[in-house]
Amino acid sequence: MAGNRLDPWVDSYAERAQGLTASAIRALFAVASRPEVVSLAGGMPYVSALDSDRFAQIAAKVVRDQGTVALQYGSGQGDPTLREQILEISGLVGVRSHPDDVVVTAGSQMGLDLVTKVFCDPGDTVLVESPSYVGALGVFRSYQCNVVHVAMDHEGLDPQALREALGQAKSSGSRVKFIYTIPSFHNPAGLTQGLQRRKEILAIAQEFNVPILEDDPYGLLGFEGEPPKAIRSLDDQGVIYLGSFSKIIASGLRVGWVIAPHGVREKLVLAAEAATLCPSNFSQLTVSRYLSEENWQQQIKVFQELYRERRDALLQAMQAYMPTGTTWTVPQGGFYSWVTLPAPLNATNMLPRAISSLVAYVPGTGFYADGQGSTNLRLSYCYPQPDRIAEGVRRLAGVIDAELDLINTFGAAQTDQTATPPVRSINPLSNLN
Amino acid sequence: MAGNRLDPWVDSYAERAQGLTASAIRALFAVASRPEVVSLAGGMPYVSALDSDRFAQIAAKVVRDQGTVALQYGSGQGDPTLREQILEISGLVGVRSHPDDVVVTAGSQMGLDLVTKVFCDPGDTVLVESPSYVGALGVFRSYQCNVVHVAMDHEGLDPQALREALGQAKSSGSRVKFIYTIPSFHNPAGLTQGLQRRKEILAIAQEFNVPILEDDPYGLLGFEGEPPKAIRSLDDQGVIYLGSFSKIIASGLRVGWVIAPHGVREKLVLAAEAATLCPSNFSQLTVSRYLSEENWQQQIKVFQELYRERRDALLQAMQAYMPTGTTWTVPQGGFYSWVTLPAPLNATNMLPRAISSLVAYVPGTGFYADGQGSTNLRLSYCYPQPDRIAEGVRRLAGVIDAELDLINTFGAAQTDQTATPPVRSINPLSNLN
Repeated sequence: MAGNRLDPWVDSYAERAQGLTASAIRALFAVASRPEVVSLAGGMPYVSALDSDRFAQIAAKVVRDQGTVALQYGSGQGDPTLREQILEISGLVGVRSHPDDVVVTAGSQMGLDLVTKVFCDPGDTVLVESPSYVGALGVFRSYQCNVVHVAMDHEGLDPQALREALGQAKSSGSRVKFIYTIPSFHNPAGLTQGLQRRKEILAIAQEFNVPILEDDPYGLLGFEGEPPKAIRSLDDQGVIYLGSFSKIIASGLRVGWVIAPHGVREKLVLAAEAATLCPSNFSQLTVSRYLSEENWQQQIKVFQELYRERRDALLQAMQAYMPTGTTWTVPQGGFYSWVTLPAPLNATNMLPRAISSLVAYVPGTGFYADGQGSTNLRLSYCYPQPDRIAEGVRRLAGVIDAELDLINTFGAAQTDQTATPPVRSINPLSNLN
Repeated sequence: MAGNRLDPWVDSYAERAQGLTASAIRALFAVASRPEVVSLAGGMPYVSALDSDRFAQIAAKVVRDQGTVALQYGSGQGDPTLREQILEISGLVGVRSHPDDVVVTAGSQMGLDLVTKVFCDPGDTVLVESPSYVGALGVFRSYQCNVVHVAMDHEGLDPQALREALGQAKSSGSRVKFIYTIPSFHNPAGLTQGLQRRKEILAIAQEFNVPILEDDPYGLLGFEGEPPKAIRSLDDQGVIYLGSFSKIIASGLRVGWVIAPHGVREKLVLAAEAATLCPSNFSQLTVSRYLSEENWQQQIKVFQELYRERRDALLQAMQAYMPTGTTWTVPQGGFYSWVTLPAPLNATNMLPRAISSLVAYVPGTGFYADGQGSTNLRLSYCYPQPDRIAEGVRRLAGVIDAELDLINTFGAAQTDQTATPPVRSINPLSNLN
C-alpha cells in the first residue's frame, strides 16, 4: 500500500494540497486560547454590540413567516430581495450596479475563492499589497498562484511600485490575472487609499488591462467623515467588488457578496453552484429582514463608535508603553494597526514569549507569501474591551523590552538563530478571545 | 483591449472556467418555473413537513441564549457539539468515528468540492456511477477531472465493471483518485446497493488501493426496514463519507459534513478555511439545538412516510399511464426514479414539448459527463403532492405517446435530427416548484 501508516493517502493528494499545511503558529494559537490571554490577534467583530433579543425575534419571524423559503434550497446567485438591499448598502461607498450582477456568497472569503477559481490557472500571477490579507494568500496558494507583493506607502498601494510590477510581469511574460487590494482600512496594514490614489491605481490597471479585485469588508467602519468611495464606483467593467455583512451585522451568518461585470458574474454563479449549490436561505432571509426592519445605519454608527474607542485605547497604550524604535500605523477605520519592531527583533520568534506573558498577536510573516514581515506584527483592537487592550499592549511592550535587553546583552544571534520560513496556512481568524 | 464588448475578461479566465457554461436546459427551466407546471424535476425536500413554529422558537433561542457564539466566526472544522451529534446520526448507518474526524461544511456539496480540490489535479481520473449525481459531475468538471462512468445493474454500481474500469485505468497509467458512489437510494438512478454488494465494491477498491467517496444524503430516508449500513461502516481508512442535514432537517440551513481518515481530514479543514473561513455558527447552532431539543427521529419517520406515499403515487401513475416500452427503476427510498424511454426517443429534445404540456423533468444527459443518457430522464417525487405527481405523469405519458406517434408516422429523423451534446452545468436543484 502506498502512503504511510499515519496517512495512507499521502501520495494521492493534488499538487495544490501541498500548500495546505498547518503552521506551527496555528498550534500555538490553539494553546493560547485561554481567557487570561489578552488577544490582539483575532479579527473577530464585537457582535455583543448587537441587540440579541431583537435579532432573535427576526430569526424567528423569518422561519415562522417565510419558512418554506428560508428552510429550502434557493437560487445559486442568492435571494433577489437581498441582492437589491446589497445594492443599497454598496451605494454608500458609491457603487452603482444591477441586482443581476450581485452574487451572494457564504461570506466574502467565498467570493475570493470563486474569483480566484474562475481566473487563475496554476502559475498565474496575482498582485497583492505588501503585506496582504492572510486569508487571501491562503486562497491564492490553494489555487497555486504566483503571488507578487507590491509595496505600500502611507496611503496604501503605491502606484509607482504597481506600475513597475505590472511592467516587470509583462516583460517576463507572466499572466497577471488581477490586482488584489483592500483600499479602505487595510487588513493588516491599517492604511487607506485616498480618492486620488484610487484613481491612479485604477488608471494603471486599465492601462495594463488587468482587473482589480477590490476587497471592502471595512469600508463602512471609518471613524470620521463619509465612507471612502470604492474603486468600483469609478469603473463598472474593470473592478470586481467584494462586500461582507460580517463586520456590519454578524460574521456568524456567513453572508457576503460579489459585484462583478456581467460576464464574470455568469462564471461566478456557475462556480458557486458547483461549490455549495446555493447560499443559505436561512441566513440570507435573516439578513434581509434585519435590513428591512431594523435601523442598521444606526447600528453601524454604534460599531464605528465602539471600534474608534478601542483604536484610541490601542494608540494611547502604544504611545505610553512601546519602547523607542517601535512604530505603528494609525488606522482611520477598521480593526487593525501594523507594528514594526526595532531591528533585529523577530515577531514570529517572539510570539511564544508573548503568549507566556499573556498577550497574543499575529506575526507579520503570515501576511506575506514570500517570507517577508519578520519584524512586523498585526494588532487587532476590535474584540477586547479598551482596558484589556491597554493591558495587552503593556504586556507586549514588556516582552519587546525584554527582547531588546537580551539582544543588548548577548547579541542578536541569541534571539534569532534561524531564518524564519514564511508562515503557511495560518487561520485567518486567529481564533482567540 | 483584449476580450470583447460583451465580456472584456473573456481571455483572462482559468482553463477550468471553460467548463463553466450555462446549458440551454438551464434557460428552459428558468422559463418553466410557473405554478401550472408540475415539476418532477427538482430534488427539493418537502420542508413544509417541518413544524415551522417550533423551528422558529429554536432559532430564536439560539440567538437569544448563544448569540455571542451564533453570530460570531467559529472553528473552521465546525462546532464541536454539533460534530458529536453528527456522529450520533451517522451511527444510524453504522459509521463509528471520532468528532475530530468530522468536518462540518456549508452543505454536502461543499464536502464534494473540498475532497475533489484536495485530491484531484487536472486530468486525474474519478470513477462514477452511470448515471451519477449532476452536482458531483459539475464539481469534477470544475477541477478538470477525467470522469469515467462505470455501469450499474439492478443493485447499483457493478463490481465487475468497476474492476474492469480500475484495471483499464491502471494499465493505461491514469491516476484514479477516488470512486464516487451513492450507495443508498441513488440520485438519479433510484437504486440501492445491498450489504454484500457494498463489501464487494470495498474489496475491489482496497485491492486497487483507491479510496471510496461515499455520498449518503438519503441513507435515512428508506421506506422499509433498517437504514442500509454505510460502506464507511466497513472501513475507516479507505472511505470518505459525505452526510447532509438537507434532507433530514432542512436544505436552507446549508449544513452537511465529511467524515474522513485523519490525514485527509487535516487537508479538508485547511481547504475549508481557504474556501469560507468557517461554516455558519448561526446555522450550525440551530441544527444542534434542533437535534438536542426536538424528536428528530420522529421527524425522519414523518419524512419517510411522506416520501413513500409520493413514491407510490409516482409508480402507480407510471403503471397506469406510461406507454409500452417505457421502463423505470423502483426506489426503496430517497427522491428519484430513473426512466428509460422507448427507443429512439430523446429526452432532451422532448423537454420543450413536455414543458409546453405543463410537466417538467431532468433529461438523462445531465447525469453523464460523456453524452450518454439521451433516452433517459429523472423523475423526482419528493416535492409535489401525490395527486399532482399523478397528474404530472399523466401529462408526461401523453407527451411520450405523441412523440411515438410522430415517429411512427414520419420516422425518427423528424424528432431527433442532431446528436445531443452532453448537458453542461445544469443547475442540480433544477429549481422548479
